[in-house]
Amino acid sequence: MPSDKGGLTPRAEDFPRWYQEVVAGAEMAENGPVRGTMVIRPWGFGIWELLVDELDRRIKEAGAEGAYFPLFIPESFLRLEASHVEGFSPELAVVTHGGGKELDEPIVVRPTSETVVNHFFAKWIQSYRDLPLAINQWSNVVRWEMRTRLFLRTTEFLWQEGHTAHSTEQEATAYALRILRDVYLDTVETAAGIPALIGHKTERERFAGAVRTWTSEGMMGDGKALQLGTSHELGQNFARAFDIQFSDETGAQQFVWQTSWGASTRLVGALIMAHGDDFGLRLPPALAPSQVVVMVVKEDEATERAAAAIAADLKAAGIRVRVDDRTETGFGRRAIDWERKGVPVRVEVGPRDLAEDKAVVVLRHDRSKSPVALSALVAEVESALGRTTELLYDEALAFRKERTTTVDTVDEAIEAGATGFAVLPWSAVGDAGEDRLAEAGITVRCLQSPDGSLAEGEEDSLIAVVGKAY
Amino acid sequence: MPSDKGGLTPRAEDFPRWYQEVVAGAEMAENGPVRGTMVIRPWGFGIWELLVDELDRRIKEAGAEGAYFPLFIPESFLRLEASHVEGFSPELAVVTHGGGKELDEPIVVRPTSETVVNHFFAKWIQSYRDLPLAINQWSNVVRWEMRTRLFLRTTEFLWQEGHTAHSTEQEATAYALRILRDVYLDTVETAAGIPALIGHKTERERFAGAVRTWTSEGMMGDGKALQLGTSHELGQNFARAFDIQFSDETGAQQFVWQTSWGASTRLVGALIMAHGDDFGLRLPPALAPSQVVVMVVKEDEATERAAAAIAADLKAAGIRVRVDDRTETGFGRRAIDWERKGVPVRVEVGPRDLAEDKAVVVLRHDRSKSPVALSALVAEVESALGRTTELLYDEALAFRKERTTTVDTVDEAIEAGATGFAVLPWSAVGDAGEDRLAEAGITVRCLQSPDGSLAEGEEDSLIAVVGKAY
Repeated sequence: MPSDKGGLTPRAEDFPRWYQEVVAGAEMAENGPVRGTMVIRPWGFGIWELLVDELDRRIKEAGAEGAYFPLFIPESFLRLEASHVEGFSPELAVVTHGGGKELDEPIVVRPTSETVVNHFFAKWIQSYRDLPLAINQWSNVVRWEMRTRLFLRTTEFLWQEGHTAHSTEQEATAYALRILRDVYLDTVETAAGIPALIGHKTERERFAGAVRTWTSEGMMGDGKALQLGTSHELGQNFARAFDIQFSDETGAQQFVWQTSWGASTRLVGALIMAHGDDFGLRLPPALAPSQVVVMVVKEDEATERAAAAIAADLKAAGIRVRVDDRTETGFGRRAIDWERKGVPVRVEVGPRDLAEDKAVVVLRHDRSKSPVALSALVAEVESALGRTTELLYDEALAFRKERTTTVDTVDEAIEAGATGFAVLPWSAVGDAGEDRLAEAGITVRCLQSPDGSLAEGEEDSLIAVVGKAY
Repeated sequence: MPSDKGGLTPRAEDFPRWYQEVVAGAEMAENGPVRGTMVIRPWGFGIWELLVDELDRRIKEAGAEGAYFPLFIPESFLRLEASHVEGFSPELAVVTHGGGKELDEPIVVRPTSETVVNHFFAKWIQSYRDLPLAINQWSNVVRWEMRTRLFLRTTEFLWQEGHTAHSTEQEATAYALRILRDVYLDTVETAAGIPALIGHKTERERFAGAVRTWTSEGMMGDGKALQLGTSHELGQNFARAFDIQFSDETGAQQFVWQTSWGASTRLVGALIMAHGDDFGLRLPPALAPSQVVVMVVKEDEATERAAAAIAADLKAAGIRVRVDDRTETGFGRRAIDWERKGVPVRVEVGPRDLAEDKAVVVLRHDRSKSPVALSALVAEVESALGRTTELLYDEALAFRKERTTTVDTVDEAIEAGATGFAVLPWSAVGDAGEDRLAEAGITVRCLQSPDGSLAEGEEDSLIAVVGKAY
C-alpha cells in the first residue's frame, strides 16, 4: 500500500531499514546466492559506471596507467609481508581444486593485490629511469565478511586499486596525497556532492602493511561515518618483502618507496546515505544514469509526440534523458518510482499543460514543482541540473556541522559520537582512549591539523575526529 | 643484439614464437604466478580499454544495460542445465574454504554466468511488460585450461557477457543476430580492421546449453582461424531449468526465449596476429593507446620545444599522442620499440629537419618515411590515421582470400585447411566428416549460405568454412 513516501520507512524511524528499502525499491542491488555476495542491477550499476568514469579520468590525469593482475594469488605470496598477512588471513577465500583435481598449493582469491603487483614491480623496475611507476586496476576483490550489507560491506566488491613505486619517500608521500585530494576528495565533493573530511588514520586503523593511511570520510544521514577512499604510504615495507630495488643515478642499489590506494562500490552506498531522504535516493546529476525523466502523464498520441520532442531537445543539449511512456501503469506509481530512484529532474507532460504550451518540472532535490513554458524548458532544466550538486553538498555540510561537536575528553566524545562526530585533541585520546572509544563502538575516523587541514607531522597538536562508522 | 627487426623471430619461421616475442617485447602481458593466469601490462591493457569502449558503446546502442553478478556461484546452480554442466564441469575452479573455515557447499568461480543470471531473471520477470530484458556485464571468468597462451587462452580472462530474455523465439533470434552484426562484426571490422566471416556453428562446436551459436571468425597471419565473438540462441533451455516464465498479454504463462553472447581479451590476441608483421604489432588507430608518438631524435632544447609544440597541436586535433624525449636511450632502440608496440604514426623531430621547418613522418603500416612541412603536419597525420584501418583491413582480406580454397571433399579440405580455410558444401562433411577433420586438427569454423551470408534455416544448401583454429 504505497503511502506518500512510496512505502519507505522514514529515516528517523529506522535508518538501516530505510537503506535496505531504498536499495531494493530503487532496483539498485540485491543479495547474491552465495552469502555476502551482491548482484548490482542496472540502476545501481549505472551509477557505479559513472563513478568509475569520474575516478578513472582523474586517476589517469594523475599519471597512473591501467593494468590488470590475476584474481588468483599463490597462498605463499601473502606470507611475505608480515603485517599484511596478519590483516588479511582471516578474510581469505581459498581455491583448493581446479580442473577436477586437488591443487598442489592452495590459491587465494585476491583480497587486494599488493603482493602480486609487487612481485612484478620487482621484475619491471631496474633503474631510476623506470620510476615513478604508477598503475591502476579496476577489479573485483573478495574478503570473507561475516556481517554484510549491500554496497557497504560485501564478500565480493568492485573497486580500483592503484599501486606506485617512487625513488624517494617525499615523492611517494606527495603522490599519496595527490591521489587523496585530486582523485578521491575531488570526485566525492565535485561529482558526488558529499563533503568529506581528510586526514590520516591512527596506527590501529591503518591498512595492513602501510606506514601511513590517508583517508577521506563522509558523514551519512544518520550521523555515522563512511570511509570514502584511502591512500596508503607503504614506505619500503613491500619493497623489502618483494626485493624491489633500483639503481639510482650514482649506480647505487636502493629500495623503492611505495603507495597504494583504493575506492570501491561502497561509494554507491555513500551516495544513498549522504543524500537520500524519506522519498528515496537523490542523485547528483554527474552520477545519475538518467538525469531527466520525461513522463507521459496519460496515454495520448499528441502527448507522446510532445514528450519525445522534449526528450530529443534535452538529449541534444547533452543531457542523459529517458522517456517514461508506460501509461499502462498509474502516473502516481511511476512518479514515486522515479523519485525513489533519485532522478534529479522530472518533466511531466500532459494534455492540459500542453494546451498552454507548458510542462511541469519537478526537482528531486526539494520536490518543488513548477509549470515551465516549453520554449524555456531546456534552459530551465539545465539550470536546475547545474544547481543540484551544490545544493546537495550544502545540505550535507550543514547537517555535518550540526552533528559535529567539539569536546575535550573521551567521555564527552563517547556521548557526542553516538549521534555524530566529535572533535577533540588527539593528545586527549591516545591508545588508551581509543580502547575506551572502541568499547562504545566509536573509532577515530581521522587525525587532522587544528585547522582541519592535512597533518603531515606534528603529532602533538593533532585533532581527532571520532564517530561511529560503517 | 637488435637486428633490423628488433630481434623478433620472423613470422614465417616460427609464428607462435613470433607471437610470444611480440607480446613480451611490446610489454603487453606476461604469465601470472598461478599457472595459466595473465598479467596485462599498460600497453596491452590500454588496447583492451579501447576495445571495451568500442564494444560497450555498441552494446548499449543495442539496448542492453550494464549490471554485475557475483564471481561465486553455488555448485548446485551449475547442475540445473544438463548440457551446460557437462560442458563446463572439467574446467571449474572450486572454493572450499572461506574465512578460515571449510564451506558447507563448495563454491564455483564463474566460468560464465548463465546460471546465476537466470536465477535472478526468474525473480525479475513476471509479465510481458518486463520483456525484453537485456543486460551485459564486464567481468573476469575462470576456466581451468591445460594449455594456455597469453590473450588467446588463459585460465582467467576478461570479457563481456550479455544475457537477454524475450517473449518470442523470433525476437530472440533477431537479437542474437543484431549483437553478432552490430556489435561484434562492426567492432571487429570497423574499429579493429579485421575482416570476419559470420555464420553459425555445427552442433559439436555449439556453446554448452545453446540451441544455436552464431560466430564471427577471423583469419590470423598464419592462416589459422580465431573466434572473435559468439552470440548464442539459448531457446527455452535455461528458461525451463530456472523456471523463467511470464504472463503474456492474454494472461497465459509462457517460458521466455533467451540469448547470451560474449567477447573477450582474446580480441587483443586477434589484433596482434591479424595485423602484426615481422617488426611487431600494427595497431588500427581506434585501438592504439597512443596513435602518434613524437620522438625527439637527440637531446637539444629547441628540438624538445618543437616536439612539445607538435604534440600539443596533434592533441588539440583530438589525437592520442605521446612525446618520447628519453634521449638517454639511443634513437634506433626507441624507434624499434615504438614499431614493435604498433603505434600507427611516428613523428621524428630532429635539428636538421627543423632547420628546414620539417619533421619526418613514419607510417607503421608500410614503414614509409617522408619529410613533412610542419605547417602541413597535423593534416598529414590525420590523413594517415584516417587511411590506416582500411589499409590493414584490405591487406588482411587479400591474405584471407589467398589462403582460402574452395574444395569438394573432406580430403581436399584437410589439405587446404593445413595452411588456411577450405570452403565446401556442408552436405559433403556431416558428422562423419567432422570426425575426420578433427583427426587432422581441423574444425568447422562456421556454416554459411552459399553467398557467404548468414544462413537461418536451409541446412541442405549450407557451405562449411573449415580450418585450424586457436
